[in-house]
Amino acid sequence: MSNYKELKRECYEANMELPRLDLVVYTFGNVSAVARDKGVFAIKPSGIPYEELAADDMVIVDLDNKVVEGKMRPSSDTKTHAFLYRSWENVGGIAHTHSTYAVAWAQAQRDIPIFGTTHADHHTHDVPCAPPMSDELIQGDYEHMTGQQILDCFREKNLDFNEVEMVLLGNHGPFTWGKNAAKAVYNSKVLEELAKMAFLTLQINPNAPRLRQALIRKHYDRKHGKDAYYGQNG
Amino acid sequence: MSNYKELKRECYEANMELPRLDLVVYTFGNVSAVARDKGVFAIKPSGIPYEELAADDMVIVDLDNKVVEGKMRPSSDTKTHAFLYRSWENVGGIAHTHSTYAVAWAQAQRDIPIFGTTHADHHTHDVPCAPPMSDELIQGDYEHMTGQQILDCFREKNLDFNEVEMVLLGNHGPFTWGKNAAKAVYNSKVLEELAKMAFLTLQINPNAPRLRQALIRKHYDRKHGKDAYYGQNG
Amino acid sequence: MSNYKELKRECYEANMELPRLDLVVYTFGNVSAVARDKGVFAIKPSGIPYEELAADDMVIVDLDNKVVEGKMRPSSDTKTHAFLYRSWENVGGIAHTHSTYAVAWAQAQRDIPIFGTTHADHHTHDVPCAPPMSDELIQGDYEHMTGQQILDCFREKNLDFNEVEMVLLGNHGPFTWGKNAAKAVYNSKVLEELAKMAFLTLQINPNAPRLRQALIRKHYDRKHGKDAYYGQNG
Amino acid sequence: MSNYKELKRECYEANMELPRLDLVVYTFGNVSAVARDKGVFAIKPSGIPYEELAADDMVIVDLDNKVVEGKMRPSSDTKTHAFLYRSWENVGGIAHTHSTYAVAWAQAQRDIPIFGTTHADHHTHDVPCAPPMSDELIQGDYEHMTGQQILDCFREKNLDFNEVEMVLLGNHGPFTWGKNAAKAVYNSKVLEELAKMAFLTLQINPNAPRLRQALIRKHYDRKHGKDAYYGQNG
Repeated sequence: MSNYKELKRECYEANMELPRLDLVVYTFGNVSAVARDKGVFAIKPSGIPYEELAADDMVIVDLDNKVVEGKMRPSSDTKTHAFLYRSWENVGGIAHTHSTYAVAWAQAQRDIPIFGTTHADHHTHDVPCAPPMSDELIQGDYEHMTGQQILDCFREKNLDFNEVEMVLLGNHGPFTWGKNAAKAVYNSKVLEELAKMAFLTLQINPNAPRLRQALIRKHYDRKHGKDAYYGQNG
Repeated sequence: MSNYKELKRECYEANMELPRLDLVVYTFGNVSAVARDKGVFAIKPSGIPYEELAADDMVIVDLDNKVVEGKMRPSSDTKTHAFLYRSWENVGGIAHTHSTYAVAWAQAQRDIPIFGTTHADHHTHDVPCAPPMSDELIQGDYEHMTGQQILDCFREKNLDFNEVEMVLLGNHGPFTWGKNAAKAVYNSKVLEELAKMAFLTLQINPNAPRLRQALIRKHYDRKHGKDAYYGQNG
Repeated sequence: MSNYKELKRECYEANMELPRLDLVVYTFGNVSAVARDKGVFAIKPSGIPYEELAADDMVIVDLDNKVVEGKMRPSSDTKTHAFLYRSWENVGGIAHTHSTYAVAWAQAQRDIPIFGTTHADHHTHDVPCAPPMSDELIQGDYEHMTGQQILDCFREKNLDFNEVEMVLLGNHGPFTWGKNAAKAVYNSKVLEELAKMAFLTLQINPNAPRLRQALIRKHYDRKHGKDAYYGQNG
Repeated sequence: MSNYKELKRECYEANMELPRLDLVVYTFGNVSAVARDKGVFAIKPSGIPYEELAADDMVIVDLDNKVVEGKMRPSSDTKTHAFLYRSWENVGGIAHTHSTYAVAWAQAQRDIPIFGTTHADHHTHDVPCAPPMSDELIQGDYEHMTGQQILDCFREKNLDFNEVEMVLLGNHGPFTWGKNAAKAVYNSKVLEELAKMAFLTLQINPNAPRLRQALIRKHYDRKHGKDAYYGQNG
């Protein structure tokens, strides 16, 4: 019997959401879920199609990238997940996809401007696009450095990962996270929507202005501020 | 036993159409249905995913925004619905979504030009885009002022809400309405179609002319005029 | 017992294909099927949603627009169908939709250029876009004149309706036809595909050249020429 | 009893994936699977809709285009398949579709630039677009020359068909291949995704740079290089 049955289940359910939400085809994408008290996370095995996955196939890895339990090799992006879990204490789940519109912005190497309240309902900044790595970094410990690249991007832009739970990696695609794996996947879907809306907005009006600051704050705070009145909590 | 069982049912059915018609993801969007004789309307509870909704979860609110029946908090947009019901006597249902193409036009802050008969089959004007609110209004009673903003836009443009049953809120997204909740949702879907068609039209021909007046009248009148011959009534 | 049971069935099946092929929403669109020997055609009743249609609801109309059998009012576009059946002897079925990409080209008032073999597999010309009617014609017998407008467009461009089984009506949308109702619907779907492909082609390369004449002939003839070798016939 | 039961089954399953993956409508597209030891391949019969196909309908053809078994005429593109099997020894399956975005690039007569890691996960080059044939070639043995055209394109660009398993035929559409028929279909789907992502990338940033060489190598090698660590093999 596995000691990580529940963790694997959470991770499995979140992974299976990706094809249902049209965020992946084939083996693209991966989601992980962390158990902070046990110092491990569960992650999708590498290169397995979603329709063949079982909950027990999830691989258990510690925060130093060592496989703790599992017959299969973990996702090739495992070190990026581990790096982010080590760097950001509150993060409970991480998702990575190659969803079409988010990838297009990443390939265009542009931040996604905050154009409307759909965006401000989730956070108050443009979705950052981290620049592509230098050649040395790529030839080094690539997936580790991918995590570093995300961290550097957030530091340089002075962003808080507790608020902005999504990033584009230039030329690659999106990573998203949240308090748990389900929230990370939710953020992947929201990001894809924001990416599509922003793309269309610029096609209709190349000079579309960013959302004004008062409206950014209003929408973010009514959902996430101390006097939030969206949803059933608080 | 609720006194509003039928009203809740109407409201629930209309809300459940939104994900079926691909107009919302997650908890985005909300529909309400009014009972004029009882001075109340039913509306979706805030932040509840559609797949978890039950008819009995609909919240009953009076036209002064007071909850009359319901265990849950009503949609955060409730005051906008109440404002429009107070202002416009014939309206029986209201829908609000973040559907992709309508939002893109709202974020581009442009009216949707009447380019064809699909549009004129429904009304005879460009779909109006209300400008974003000033900072003072945003920091005041925001959802109330959102209703005011819609009203002002219709007054300024001299539009009749009985004919034009849809509006874009600049930087936000669409509100639609109709004689009942089902018609409001129908208008949300039609608006999304018009928004997509108009977007594509401008991509193919940036100088595409608006539909000529005679054709606007012809198509609108054959469906809605006194000698209408579309459909099975009249 | 109806004398037109089979005709109604053919017409009904073809109509029901439209929502399945994503060519219509709600009550948009209509298909008819003609029985030349009986001098009548069956057509969708006006304004009825597809999910409520039954085969027996199809309305039987003669070529002078008189209802021969049926409890409901026929499609408001009936006179256009009748006109085309009177004008073009070999046509067995006609379809009209408001499919998104075809409408966008109609609203842009542009012919769809023949850019590739997908197009040439079906016919050898740009898909013609008939110009919008003059104001007098619109105020006259509108649906009759819509047929006239299509006929004039084919005459002016010297097109053969036996080869080119599709047209765009400027500012309105597509009409398609064929040897029977099923083929007319097939052409509606093909047209929507061609419209989308041509739109994307021009986005990628605004100077994309039309398909060269030798390739147009080759692809058309291998499917439709006297030495055709596509398919299982001939 | 057929001697080719398994081969037909492989070919049939691969063909049926095309409509499931939204890569074809109606009778568009065809997949073949080769049995090198028997000197034959199985291919879809010409002009048969997917929903009417049975495994036993697959036509068995030898590498000189002669039908060996089968009641139906093979795909009109059979000679192109045979040509490629003769030219490229390791290829086990070939797929041809008219998928929307890939066709748009083919009609635009442009290579698909390698903009991101989704692309580099599969190969290290732009997806080549072979130029349209000259008029003489078209009027000759067209489908045979289509194969020649692909071969010439790969030779001129110095591409290895073992690495780059996809090509666009100018004005026509994509051909893809792989170690077996399933892999060929996989490549058709991947190509359609790459085509859509690249289209959107250029819309967002017309000056989007190609992926840098170090990242191309990194992503390709971690999946396909001698020290590959993606997936469960090696």
